[in-house]
Amino acid sequence: MAEKQLGGAGLRGQVAGQTALCTVGQSGTGLTYRGYDISDLAEYAQFEEVAYLLLRGKLPNRQELNDYTAKLRKLRALPDALKAVLEQIPKNAHPMDVMRTGCSMLGNLETEEDFSEQDDKIDRMLAVFPSIITYWYRFAHEGVRIETDGDSESIGGHFLELLHGKKPSELHERVMNVSLILYAEHEFNASTFTARVCASTLSDIHSCVTGAIGTLRGPLHGGANEAAMALIEKFKTPDEAEQGLMGMLERKEKIMGFGHAIYRESDPRNAIIKKWSEKLAKEVGDEVLYPVSVRCEDVMWREKKLFCNADFFHASAYHFMGIPTELFTPIFVMSRVSGWTAHVKEQRENNRIIRPSADYTGPAHSEWVPIDKR
Amino acid sequence: MAEKQLGGAGLRGQVAGQTALCTVGQSGTGLTYRGYDISDLAEYAQFEEVAYLLLRGKLPNRQELNDYTAKLRKLRALPDALKAVLEQIPKNAHPMDVMRTGCSMLGNLETEEDFSEQDDKIDRMLAVFPSIITYWYRFAHEGVRIETDGDSESIGGHFLELLHGKKPSELHERVMNVSLILYAEHEFNASTFTARVCASTLSDIHSCVTGAIGTLRGPLHGGANEAAMALIEKFKTPDEAEQGLMGMLERKEKIMGFGHAIYRESDPRNAIIKKWSEKLAKEVGDEVLYPVSVRCEDVMWREKKLFCNADFFHASAYHFMGIPTELFTPIFVMSRVSGWTAHVKEQRENNRIIRPSADYTGPAHSEWVPIDKR
Repeated sequence: MAEKQLGGAGLRGQVAGQTALCTVGQSGTGLTYRGYDISDLAEYAQFEEVAYLLLRGKLPNRQELNDYTAKLRKLRALPDALKAVLEQIPKNAHPMDVMRTGCSMLGNLETEEDFSEQDDKIDRMLAVFPSIITYWYRFAHEGVRIETDGDSESIGGHFLELLHGKKPSELHERVMNVSLILYAEHEFNASTFTARVCASTLSDIHSCVTGAIGTLRGPLHGGANEAAMALIEKFKTPDEAEQGLMGMLERKEKIMGFGHAIYRESDPRNAIIKKWSEKLAKEVGDEVLYPVSVRCEDVMWREKKLFCNADFFHASAYHFMGIPTELFTPIFVMSRVSGWTAHVKEQRENNRIIRPSADYTGPAHSEWVPIDKR
Repeated sequence: MAEKQLGGAGLRGQVAGQTALCTVGQSGTGLTYRGYDISDLAEYAQFEEVAYLLLRGKLPNRQELNDYTAKLRKLRALPDALKAVLEQIPKNAHPMDVMRTGCSMLGNLETEEDFSEQDDKIDRMLAVFPSIITYWYRFAHEGVRIETDGDSESIGGHFLELLHGKKPSELHERVMNVSLILYAEHEFNASTFTARVCASTLSDIHSCVTGAIGTLRGPLHGGANEAAMALIEKFKTPDEAEQGLMGMLERKEKIMGFGHAIYRESDPRNAIIKKWSEKLAKEVGDEVLYPVSVRCEDVMWREKKLFCNADFFHASAYHFMGIPTELFTPIFVMSRVSGWTAHVKEQRENNRIIRPSADYTGPAHSEWVPIDKR
């Protein structure tokens, strides 16, 4: 019984459906989107191109990509009612609660009435999510009402422009682009599976994404890059980091940003974001965070054979671009919404309601007892 | 391959976890909450007593129940920021989108910072959900800002009082009570499973419930009572209903409110709500909706051996109490939030992240092609 419980826990290894979107740990460097290796995508593609690939099933040609990015740029403005809602959310709110509420509110204002509208609703979310989080953040923290229909070329650039109130450098826009590609899709992870369960009742696209955001919010899923930041910020030198980590390992403390449920020897996203973090460190003249991060990587591998996952070097990379730590997981949302909604489209194409069974462990029969005899 | 696909589709029959909360189609009249038969609960209990049973693990004694209902009564007022948000939602919004957004917004204002707060957050949702939906409904439709801290004894009475602006009759309060009991819990249905997947990343309770509301919104899950209402409203006499149904059956149209994924011969909740619908029909002097409903039941059984599920006679019962059809599924939320959150508590007690696998059906390898060569 105990064995059965462990084996089936969390549906680990159990097939819950089909997908043509992604493989994890099966071929190439370990992560593919529709068969394309993540290293090629991160090297040569734009995030919008990858979103198109996931959502439309093929890489766009030049004309298609131009049309697509032009469409997305036009969808960045926030409806007044959504602004009013964001202004009601306090400064100390959890930014993932803000994303979840912003997405849900959007569903009231621009409801998906029919699945024929799905692509338009998805593109709107891709375009407007950076506006939602930065509008709230800057209103709550600085009291300013920003204009969100900026003209940055890319979604990543748009986010940085709204956050900082000025156009990002080419390097920063490029790193955001790579980051959004790396986080876009990852098979049947918990948030994506939430989106598919929701889609399986034939619910609307905003419900699917709202639910996925709520699931990503959990510390066992999103949020590892924020935890990685909290870790590396503690140390002033690589030696201090080594000492600190050794102590944490000895005390068996949980160390975030290392290892993975599926990858065994390395996370293919790590080498990519690490390279960009190094470039950013040089740009800003950092001599602490990046070397500390590298030492953490060395120590964890030497001591535990644990490798950095996608989240670890994202922490320093985001930090070098001036992004507040609490906005790290909302960036994950801006990216993963492409994967979530591609899965919703797939689920809708070949749907059966997702309704598993449970092992019952309660009493076989309880006899009713009137309240005054209890 | 086709067979495998069908067999595994929707995780049907696959155990996805353990629960001590509920059995469906296994013992007694077919539905038990912690071993208590649904017919006993609907006959003798209050909804608040059933929520206590699900959430605290045992039936309360007199003192415990009094304390619990007194606590719930004190939690009905809406924060100003939540009212402001509800006022931004247009009249033509989907009421389930309103519930989803209201719950999500509550999570910004009264965030669950630690699982030790879970019971208080759950009780707050139980108490305040009727306030959320009626505040929005009456503001959007009548332009009035209602006070939501009414003093009705029960959650069902509170809902009716806010909706109609006057205390409900004893009969109506009783029927609401029974209805909330019947909908409170139903094992690993899709919305409950959503709540558990979300909980499995250790996310907060508002995320779990927000996601569950979005999943319940789908027409394959909640909403069958609204569809049943749309059906019976079409007919002016039982004969007309018989004729209409025969035509629909001939044209193989989908008829909602009949049959069930798990129950084989009858839904134990049907006989219970049918009895109350009949009483209400007598009270209001109905000679159309109830007889039409009974004829539909007869025809569907005679022709297709399909029985009414919980939703079918709920339609007429709610209608007789003056509840607008579009609020039927939000009532489901007010009730099922007890079951959802009891499952979240259970998941947290013995957690492993829910992360299934997928059958990959896409290309094994796609070679990168530069954009100008596509």
